[in-house]
Amino acid sequence: MAQRYVRVKTIQEQIYYGLLKLNRSVAVFDAPPWLGGQSTEIELAPDSYQILAPCAPSKIVAVGKNYAKHAEEMGTPLPKEPLLFLKPPTTIVADGQPIYYPSQSQRVDYEGELAIVIGERCRNLKPEQVSKVIWGYTIANDVTARDLQQKDGQWTRAKGFDTFCPLGPWIVRELSAGAKLQTFVNDLPTPRQSATIDEMVFAPESLIAYISQVMTLLPGDLILTGTPEGIGPLIAGDRVRVEIEGIGSLENSVIASV
Amino acid sequence: MAQRYVRVKTIQEQIYYGLLKLNRSVAVFDAPPWLGGQSTEIELAPDSYQILAPCAPSKIVAVGKNYAKHAEEMGTPLPKEPLLFLKPPTTIVADGQPIYYPSQSQRVDYEGELAIVIGERCRNLKPEQVSKVIWGYTIANDVTARDLQQKDGQWTRAKGFDTFCPLGPWIVRELSAGAKLQTFVNDLPTPRQSATIDEMVFAPESLIAYISQVMTLLPGDLILTGTPEGIGPLIAGDRVRVEIEGIGSLENSVIASV
Repeated sequence: MAQRYVRVKTIQEQIYYGLLKLNRSVAVFDAPPWLGGQSTEIELAPDSYQILAPCAPSKIVAVGKNYAKHAEEMGTPLPKEPLLFLKPPTTIVADGQPIYYPSQSQRVDYEGELAIVIGERCRNLKPEQVSKVIWGYTIANDVTARDLQQKDGQWTRAKGFDTFCPLGPWIVRELSAGAKLQTFVNDLPTPRQSATIDEMVFAPESLIAYISQVMTLLPGDLILTGTPEGIGPLIAGDRVRVEIEGIGSLENSVIASV
Repeated sequence: MAQRYVRVKTIQEQIYYGLLKLNRSVAVFDAPPWLGGQSTEIELAPDSYQILAPCAPSKIVAVGKNYAKHAEEMGTPLPKEPLLFLKPPTTIVADGQPIYYPSQSQRVDYEGELAIVIGERCRNLKPEQVSKVIWGYTIANDVTARDLQQKDGQWTRAKGFDTFCPLGPWIVRELSAGAKLQTFVNDLPTPRQSATIDEMVFAPESLIAYISQVMTLLPGDLILTGTPEGIGPLIAGDRVRVEIEGIGSLENSVIASV
């Protein structure tokens, strides 16, 4: 099994980066591993911490319509260049934390996605330079208020509510090009979304090069690579689970906003 | 004259928040003032530091078409609700630093704007609760690649290039409701933009309440309140200066990207 890099909070509210061991204890690093963090002597017992989202990015850069069949189901042509948008860092929640359904929307959708964690400060990359700045891979749910997305034109509000970016549960360093991505709602065995990540229109290399030609990327920054076809609505009480082969599964419940 | 709150970097690369004195020395705080920073005994001599943008926000939330005559000049109706978008924090540069003209664009515009610095973590505010979370006011230039804004639909790329958010030079705590905002290019005495901030469609109170009902705002976060009519292009070699009465003036040169 691949090494699983986590970020956790202890009962004393200390936040640590570390490696999740098979017995679920955490071997603690002295800094985020993409900033050169090294192993320490500290090991956290399985019941002594809470799992957080595995990184704390300075920005989340996402891409729309990056799977052909999803662009089709949205009734829009494939973009000729990556279509970028941003989610504020306040959207991030960990595996197991609730997604709050905002009162402003009547249609909130899941969007299962592969997320890429950037390992070093970079700009103006060529595609062939990208692999060295990719630190690892995790799972994201790009939750979207579909009605507000259509109403506003700009996607910032629709994709920017608190809790609209479940992320995790951990980061792995390597991923197979044909890894399967699937999204499940509640206990239904049939996936709502099912694709392999090599079906992306713009592969991670060209996507990250394109973004880096606009904005400097920093260690820990997050790239969301787009969602495949099969998007659909959630309601309060639902549980949504995004699985990526070789990473794991990210599950969150939906509850009405207070 | 109002107190001027600055952020500076010393020759030793130390970053400090502080108060800019009339003789241009800086009285240093032990933390950002919106996090409770207090005066220290350290004072920096006028030639011993470089001015930085006055805050380092976790996010920059901006609003489109918030002056009626600007919506008109863009050929678009006034939005019924604030139209939100985000700029990545990597867009920020200080007073005096260059704006890089990206090779991807043939039309880069200035947009002079009032910027508001948030003082405390907040969400779900009512308009009457907003004044207590406003820490202060500064000046921003929401530089925009107009051709890419039209081409992409989403504004993220057009407004997201490195150096596309000149900010500063300092923060003041109070601002008169009728303060004049003007933008000048080069040495021409006639302003390209000239308006008073009470001409906004959505005043800061309703704008920030609206944003806080979507996303949690954090201390140091930045709200850009929209630009008045008179937007126009910049070319390499231009100097652009945004002035707001009661704050000061923010000036940056435009240079071709390397």
